[in-house]
Amino acid sequence: MTRVSAPQWGNPLWQSLLPLGRDPRTGGYRRYSFTEADSACRDWFFRAADERKLPAHCDRNGNLWAWWGAEPTGAIVAGSHLDSVPDGGAFDGPLGVVSAFAAIDLLRERGVKPGRPIAVAAFMEEEGARFGLACLGSKLLTGVVAPDVARNLTDAAGVTFAEAMAGAGLDPGGLGRDDSLLAGISAVIELHVEQGSALDGMGAAVGVAESIWPHERRRIDFTGRADHAGTTKLKDRRDPMLPFASTVLAAREAASECGAVATMSKVVPVPGGANGICSAAHAWLDARAPDEETLRRLVARVLESAQAAAQSHGVQVTSRRESFTSVVEFDLELRDRVAGALASRGMPAPVLPTGAGHDAGVIAAERPAAMLFVRNRTGVSHSPFEHASPEDCEAGVAALAAVLTDLACR
Amino acid sequence: MTRVSAPQWGNPLWQSLLPLGRDPRTGGYRRYSFTEADSACRDWFFRAADERKLPAHCDRNGNLWAWWGAEPTGAIVAGSHLDSVPDGGAFDGPLGVVSAFAAIDLLRERGVKPGRPIAVAAFMEEEGARFGLACLGSKLLTGVVAPDVARNLTDAAGVTFAEAMAGAGLDPGGLGRDDSLLAGISAVIELHVEQGSALDGMGAAVGVAESIWPHERRRIDFTGRADHAGTTKLKDRRDPMLPFASTVLAAREAASECGAVATMSKVVPVPGGANGICSAAHAWLDARAPDEETLRRLVARVLESAQAAAQSHGVQVTSRRESFTSVVEFDLELRDRVAGALASRGMPAPVLPTGAGHDAGVIAAERPAAMLFVRNRTGVSHSPFEHASPEDCEAGVAALAAVLTDLACR
Repeated sequence: MTRVSAPQWGNPLWQSLLPLGRDPRTGGYRRYSFTEADSACRDWFFRAADERKLPAHCDRNGNLWAWWGAEPTGAIVAGSHLDSVPDGGAFDGPLGVVSAFAAIDLLRERGVKPGRPIAVAAFMEEEGARFGLACLGSKLLTGVVAPDVARNLTDAAGVTFAEAMAGAGLDPGGLGRDDSLLAGISAVIELHVEQGSALDGMGAAVGVAESIWPHERRRIDFTGRADHAGTTKLKDRRDPMLPFASTVLAAREAASECGAVATMSKVVPVPGGANGICSAAHAWLDARAPDEETLRRLVARVLESAQAAAQSHGVQVTSRRESFTSVVEFDLELRDRVAGALASRGMPAPVLPTGAGHDAGVIAAERPAAMLFVRNRTGVSHSPFEHASPEDCEAGVAALAAVLTDLACR
Repeated sequence: MTRVSAPQWGNPLWQSLLPLGRDPRTGGYRRYSFTEADSACRDWFFRAADERKLPAHCDRNGNLWAWWGAEPTGAIVAGSHLDSVPDGGAFDGPLGVVSAFAAIDLLRERGVKPGRPIAVAAFMEEEGARFGLACLGSKLLTGVVAPDVARNLTDAAGVTFAEAMAGAGLDPGGLGRDDSLLAGISAVIELHVEQGSALDGMGAAVGVAESIWPHERRRIDFTGRADHAGTTKLKDRRDPMLPFASTVLAAREAASECGAVATMSKVVPVPGGANGICSAAHAWLDARAPDEETLRRLVARVLESAQAAAQSHGVQVTSRRESFTSVVEFDLELRDRVAGALASRGMPAPVLPTGAGHDAGVIAAERPAAMLFVRNRTGVSHSPFEHASPEDCEAGVAALAAVLTDLACR
């Protein structure tokens, strides 16, 4: 594997965060919730807040908050997340948190006195990399995920969310919707590295989110029969890898025809030895489309293909929806205001849809939310190859500072 | 998963072996070399030998031997192995070892005085389930695998063969071809449960092996690019799962057209999260054919398909042969003698080819070797569903006793 060198943005906060949870062999990050790397990131957050004399706390759901302004009423929140996918890049999440602190630094340098509080937030388990449920911190905060459901989630080693949270010194007994915290928020702005190459194509350093595509994650289980790879005639086999393979190809074809995307990147053959036909193949489908009707059509087509392929190989197939996220249309008024604030300061930012889920998308159901995207020169995402140049990172901070000034000082 | 109940053969030795390494949830076995379950099986072997006053020892390569007759010259060896594949059945291996002890019991009951020594053998790591190299014990004994190659093999947790062997109280320093042991052997007879349903179709309880198909195991690595499953357009993807899927289907088709078998049951996507396109898919091909020319043609066709599919998706593919086993033709004279001994006692046994590798096939390069197959009522193999009836197990013992009498008393 190619080793990716550390991103060169000189911001001291960025530099101090970079080494935490980084795999020196690949340059990728493994910042999973409630691990040692996560704990180091949390300490980093509290140090950053402390250096700025921003009172900080961890809320009942494991999300971190740092406050500029005493009374949490009508607050403008900027932030993102610190956790990563396996072998993730440096920018996805952390760029939004670092930029929020950096924007506050910029406002203070300029002597801006906000008329309402500004908060920096870092949401817990956004990637779902450890417990399989994305945006868990914001979904607990807003009550979209019930506390008991969260507490009983398990990681790959069978550790429950509640055990892991307690192991990190936090109390899983307090999980759940946080009305008082939500009541103090008037808007959320999440800055995030772009997870594609649209801005690069348009020659723009910063963009504004239009909407988030609806998203379904579905587990598909193919159950055949374990058998000897040498002695079992082809006609006697009930090999679950064959319909799995057909389904991978069918998903790609259906996505292409629907103008959507479908991915089957996780498969666990059981028992998975090279010299035996496996008894089962557990697979996952990740499907996203511009609208919910198209998404439903896409998933139905994939499942029909899986069923037909399974039947022709004497294999059983069942599937279970693990998550469904409706389309998120960001608040139109806030979006126009964000775009206007940028344009009036000579930072025109195109408006883009995205296929990725975000905490801002979860909170959008409760409070006006908006997103800023920073150009990604490789267009790659969920990989150490994602990359934002130092200049574009600075442009992102400047844009966020402009938006916070506009929203907090009116 | 369906739980398979324990096989009902009443033989006390069989009954005492049954619980060792059995997973009570599935009824499958996990008897991996140098683990606790393996150690229990080794203790069982020494107890069985001791109860019969057969001096027993572990040879330099971890294989177990029990001797009836003091001088190891011109010995007839009966046996098989005690280790299992993951979630294997009760019969594959152990049936041959138990039947060897039981055949000696029968000979003694009948007052047979063999003119040459008879030995019971249990070969180490036949399945290759822990260290990935099948028939390792017999391959070390005959020098097919070099000691240093064996010592440096690693299991899934990175433990070397040498470390594991030492951890079980055995000395890995003594590994290697054992001329003096081989010199004392005149023939090897391995009894094994059939790994298919040919005997069942012919209405025969016992069969005799004709040949073992040549066999290749090959690792195929597809390398693409990690990317976000939601934001990366289909045309921008370099998704290694797509050519992997095409290759699984191509392998099946090529095997069908070649009159061979091909299996791709092991795949490891990296990093393997559901919401990211993986950077690589590591896959294994297990291919076997009636002759080596056909096997070469089959593997070449699979690799051509993999190459073409990879190219069309912007993915790199490389492959490496992990093992190649030539066709094994069992000694014709010994086979005729075995078949004749059975026929003359009213136990006609059909002659069958097999796609499975066996220790007897390894030793066949050095000493006359033969195999007896016992009917498998389900035809299933490498699975807890494999099944030989108590009557067929007894028929196997009777056949083995007849063969040993014929070979050892002439």
